[in-house]
Amino acid sequence: MTDLTTRRTTAAVAPVMPSTGARRGIGLDEATLHDGFWKRMQDVNASASLQHSLDWMERLGWIENFDRVANGGTGPDRPGWMFSDSEIYKLIEALAWEFGRTGDQEIDAMLERLVDRILPAEDDDGYLNTCYGHDGQEPRYSDLERGHELYCAGHLIQAAVARLRTVGEDRLVALGRRVADHVCREFGADARQGLCGHPEIEVALMELARATGEERYREQAELFIERRGQGTLRPIPLLGPGYFQDDVPVRETEAWHGHAVRALYLAAAAVDLAVDRDDAGLLAALEAQWRRTVERRTYITGGMGSRHQDEGFGDDWELPPDRAYCETCAGIASNMVSWRLYLATGDVAYADLIERTLYNVVATSPSDDGRAFFYANPLQQREAGEEAVPDAVNARAEGGERAPWFEVSCCPTNLARTLASFTAYTASVDDDGMVSLLQYAAGEYRIEVAGGEVRLRIDTRYPDEGSVTVTVLAAPEGGASLRLRVPHWAHGAALERDGSTTAVETGWAAAHGLQAGAVLTLILPMHPRFSWPDARIDAVRGTVAVERGPLVLCLEERDLPDGAALDGVRVDAELAPLAHEDGALISADTAPSPHEGARRPSFGAVPAEPSGSSTLLPLVPYHRWAQRGPTAMRVFLPSRP
Amino acid sequence: MTDLTTRRTTAAVAPVMPSTGARRGIGLDEATLHDGFWKRMQDVNASASLQHSLDWMERLGWIENFDRVANGGTGPDRPGWMFSDSEIYKLIEALAWEFGRTGDQEIDAMLERLVDRILPAEDDDGYLNTCYGHDGQEPRYSDLERGHELYCAGHLIQAAVARLRTVGEDRLVALGRRVADHVCREFGADARQGLCGHPEIEVALMELARATGEERYREQAELFIERRGQGTLRPIPLLGPGYFQDDVPVRETEAWHGHAVRALYLAAAAVDLAVDRDDAGLLAALEAQWRRTVERRTYITGGMGSRHQDEGFGDDWELPPDRAYCETCAGIASNMVSWRLYLATGDVAYADLIERTLYNVVATSPSDDGRAFFYANPLQQREAGEEAVPDAVNARAEGGERAPWFEVSCCPTNLARTLASFTAYTASVDDDGMVSLLQYAAGEYRIEVAGGEVRLRIDTRYPDEGSVTVTVLAAPEGGASLRLRVPHWAHGAALERDGSTTAVETGWAAAHGLQAGAVLTLILPMHPRFSWPDARIDAVRGTVAVERGPLVLCLEERDLPDGAALDGVRVDAELAPLAHEDGALISADTAPSPHEGARRPSFGAVPAEPSGSSTLLPLVPYHRWAQRGPTAMRVFLPSRP
Repeated sequence: MTDLTTRRTTAAVAPVMPSTGARRGIGLDEATLHDGFWKRMQDVNASASLQHSLDWMERLGWIENFDRVANGGTGPDRPGWMFSDSEIYKLIEALAWEFGRTGDQEIDAMLERLVDRILPAEDDDGYLNTCYGHDGQEPRYSDLERGHELYCAGHLIQAAVARLRTVGEDRLVALGRRVADHVCREFGADARQGLCGHPEIEVALMELARATGEERYREQAELFIERRGQGTLRPIPLLGPGYFQDDVPVRETEAWHGHAVRALYLAAAAVDLAVDRDDAGLLAALEAQWRRTVERRTYITGGMGSRHQDEGFGDDWELPPDRAYCETCAGIASNMVSWRLYLATGDVAYADLIERTLYNVVATSPSDDGRAFFYANPLQQREAGEEAVPDAVNARAEGGERAPWFEVSCCPTNLARTLASFTAYTASVDDDGMVSLLQYAAGEYRIEVAGGEVRLRIDTRYPDEGSVTVTVLAAPEGGASLRLRVPHWAHGAALERDGSTTAVETGWAAAHGLQAGAVLTLILPMHPRFSWPDARIDAVRGTVAVERGPLVLCLEERDLPDGAALDGVRVDAELAPLAHEDGALISADTAPSPHEGARRPSFGAVPAEPSGSSTLLPLVPYHRWAQRGPTAMRVFLPSRP
Repeated sequence: MTDLTTRRTTAAVAPVMPSTGARRGIGLDEATLHDGFWKRMQDVNASASLQHSLDWMERLGWIENFDRVANGGTGPDRPGWMFSDSEIYKLIEALAWEFGRTGDQEIDAMLERLVDRILPAEDDDGYLNTCYGHDGQEPRYSDLERGHELYCAGHLIQAAVARLRTVGEDRLVALGRRVADHVCREFGADARQGLCGHPEIEVALMELARATGEERYREQAELFIERRGQGTLRPIPLLGPGYFQDDVPVRETEAWHGHAVRALYLAAAAVDLAVDRDDAGLLAALEAQWRRTVERRTYITGGMGSRHQDEGFGDDWELPPDRAYCETCAGIASNMVSWRLYLATGDVAYADLIERTLYNVVATSPSDDGRAFFYANPLQQREAGEEAVPDAVNARAEGGERAPWFEVSCCPTNLARTLASFTAYTASVDDDGMVSLLQYAAGEYRIEVAGGEVRLRIDTRYPDEGSVTVTVLAAPEGGASLRLRVPHWAHGAALERDGSTTAVETGWAAAHGLQAGAVLTLILPMHPRFSWPDARIDAVRGTVAVERGPLVLCLEERDLPDGAALDGVRVDAELAPLAHEDGALISADTAPSPHEGARRPSFGAVPAEPSGSSTLLPLVPYHRWAQRGPTAMRVFLPSRP
């Protein structure tokens, strides 16, 4: 049984702790969330998704793969993809953060039982992988392009970092160090000049260096980052070197491209390197990549990845809603990058994108019961999909229905570790004591600042309602400094203090010298609003979306009146949308599917538009789509010509 | 040296000769084309593309693979994909048709030299494949899903059929029979209940049965067709059984789906089966599949395949122009299906689609010099692509530039066999003597009909001009019966005869009792016209295309005035397009790229449209796009709101 009281300083209980810089995110132990949007997601994750993931991986033999290495029973018939080990490691990381968050001994025991299984599979020299290097398997590092060995090692190391920061040194941490040392020996400056087809080891080694103070891990991460983009890897047929970002060095990249998760994990590590090395040029390059990518290659949901073929970014402005890939893991990875850039710069835009992505990608993936997930998150479902096969492995759930598990099942465990550590992204603190509130979640916050502690209580029903009340429970000498994020969409926001209300611009609303008992209330306008796409996004020309607060809304076909079809809806954009439940009502013409029955060719001599009768239609939050069962759905609705 | 005078009856010199039915296509030897659109393409194919393909396959070792089987030098290091044998066979088929068309002895010699190389690789039992079944290779038929062994056999058989129909029995034909016999033994009713992951053997065996009169080949084809759709094949990870049409039996399919070339080769074979078996139910199912697919899953170019991921069809109405895959081979395969349905039914709609696909997919692929090709044929290129690497193997040339060769190089040889046999698709003749003119190409036609011969001369500069003059040179007793196809777009067409002009509807313009000396002139309206997409095609909402005769036009960025950007063009649809060279002029607003420089998020509170100055812009035929070098391009142009 692990004793949480032995753990290290509270300031370090977080996934990302830059070694330099004037800003840190808060630790998991610096806040206790009360009931609300994210607390509910965390609780479902803890009570359902963790065990659900464990059960599937046991059932499919992914955990037994470790036993087979330990007992010499390997062969060519290994179940699972070559990267399945990483899913167990991501689950361990999730369990580590979850135990750090709650101290739940059952969670700790679940973690320890998994460590019992993986430890015996370690080779004498610190190599740990169930797919390569043993009887009946291909040799170690014989397929760096596709083998994912360093990727798996990276996730094991991230699990070790989570353990180190939540409970301190233990056998998992020691294993992580040995695995990292093995990687440094095998891939160091004087050793094999290789890199992994899937970035991940870089961001893991960076954080391990920060958590242990061992510089050699940072040097190894740097080697991997700088080696990339030189054409070292053999291109995968039909995908090319851009798929795994081996075409252009990180410093010279203009926009993220290729496989989205690969590009974003690499970028996250590069931000870490820029920060820890105080490399302003590299940081500026990464900020420019973020701006370009967010402006031109990112969906209104924050989703990234327009293409199924390579799970990758498309060209600028290539943002089809129906074929949006928007992998859940890419949303998580986008937040990893934005969070690091926020800590490095303090720019509110990064926190804004994190919010967008959290509510509209991360929150969209899991089902209400935490036992089914979206892998891809398209913004349009043309026809109601089929029910996911219950209790079965699905391919990739390309829209339609959340599925209990996937052949490539990276998303459920990635969600698990993200939700378990969510609290860490809610606030940051600067060296000068300024506390920044970033993601609004009700709870109590006890944040260590220079010269003492700031204690706050936040009361809010955000995003259902727009008021966020912050009560200062304790402040250091001279009072507390606070700044509250005013989201970029929150035009007309106001701050109440001591009975007086002040209009605030988007960005930050700051207050200083706050003593215990001070109360601030941020009022964010939550009426639904139209969002018009940039004219360069061809795929949604002539359409409009509706947002409400941080939520993107959508129209589900099931909510249409009888006889109306989703592709017959034309929004009346002269009438502003109205708030309705947690979504909106819009005025629209509805009609049966255009020309259904009247056969005509797809291309004709005159423009064709359905004509129908005007009515009010209810929109619901996109993150809830298909929770009531399969349905056709649209985020972008054609507007009346 | 082969003597063309020994060949069989002229009526059989064509790729498709149904064994029943009242209609046949003309033979290659029943027409001699004069200079014109297709004659020029045939000549470039003959003088450049055939040798170009041969040189590449020699250079890459694909032909030497046969030598290695013959001399026992096989191993695991075989160059080329597992289906590379089929490229040699498709080239042989092209050479066979080309020799049948022209009698060029150099072409015949080239063919014979290839047969010299492949014959010694045949195993004792008629198995012929350079990738499986020999030293250092996987066993025969160990991977029916991906191995393409029966696919390769099918292409060899199609080459043998071409040889049989152009010169009669020879050693290639004998080889084709042995390979087919081997397939029947291995996969017959009482043997292995397998099928090939890529349909092709079916259509080949059907035609071999027709050409040889051997019923057992038809029975084997039927077995393969009826076995399909039962879930026999192991699904390929992440693609599923629909990828190779093993999810639903052919008879129960609603619309073509999965990998486009696979779906269409299978459908072609199924039409053959329906015709030869006089199976009206099967034929009706295939006609319904064609209608549904053409209405909802086909581009304005005739291109099929909306998805890169699986080179496959998308859902209904999923027709993105930028990510259109529209594989050249899928266009060829679509014509294979439409041609068979035309012969079976006489419905002009099939010939209309063939024309659309010929001019806008088939003709688009090759460069002017016949030494570079498009594999995919998107309808929009967002930014000028990179120059294809000259003298190198490209991945798949996904737009931008034609490439000399591909890793998967199915398209160049598929084009070669199609162009060499093009003449066969220009006309058909019914049992009652009615000659139907389908694709207008200048030349002399000597068509065998019941009771004699119809000889015609066609003079036309179609599609550059819209007049087609048919002079009857000889007619059987009672006169010739002719019908001329009036394309579905040709509203306002007229027929001149004996100095008088009659308006004709789209469909057919018929004339009977024509004696030698009679002259008919069909006048087709060739002014450019707007084509508006169906309101259900989300990806091109608010845009319009321009067509002229059978040609889809496009706007290349290189033709814009200085300072204007392709994504700043807004068409003034109030003004009809004007004829201009072989394309059109349109009136449009032009502007710099919308908001370029003025950074704004991709989604805003007000609709954003560029505003610019009005000008005339030249459009060029889509099939010529990028012939002047890489450029951004659009078929569908946004119209002014």
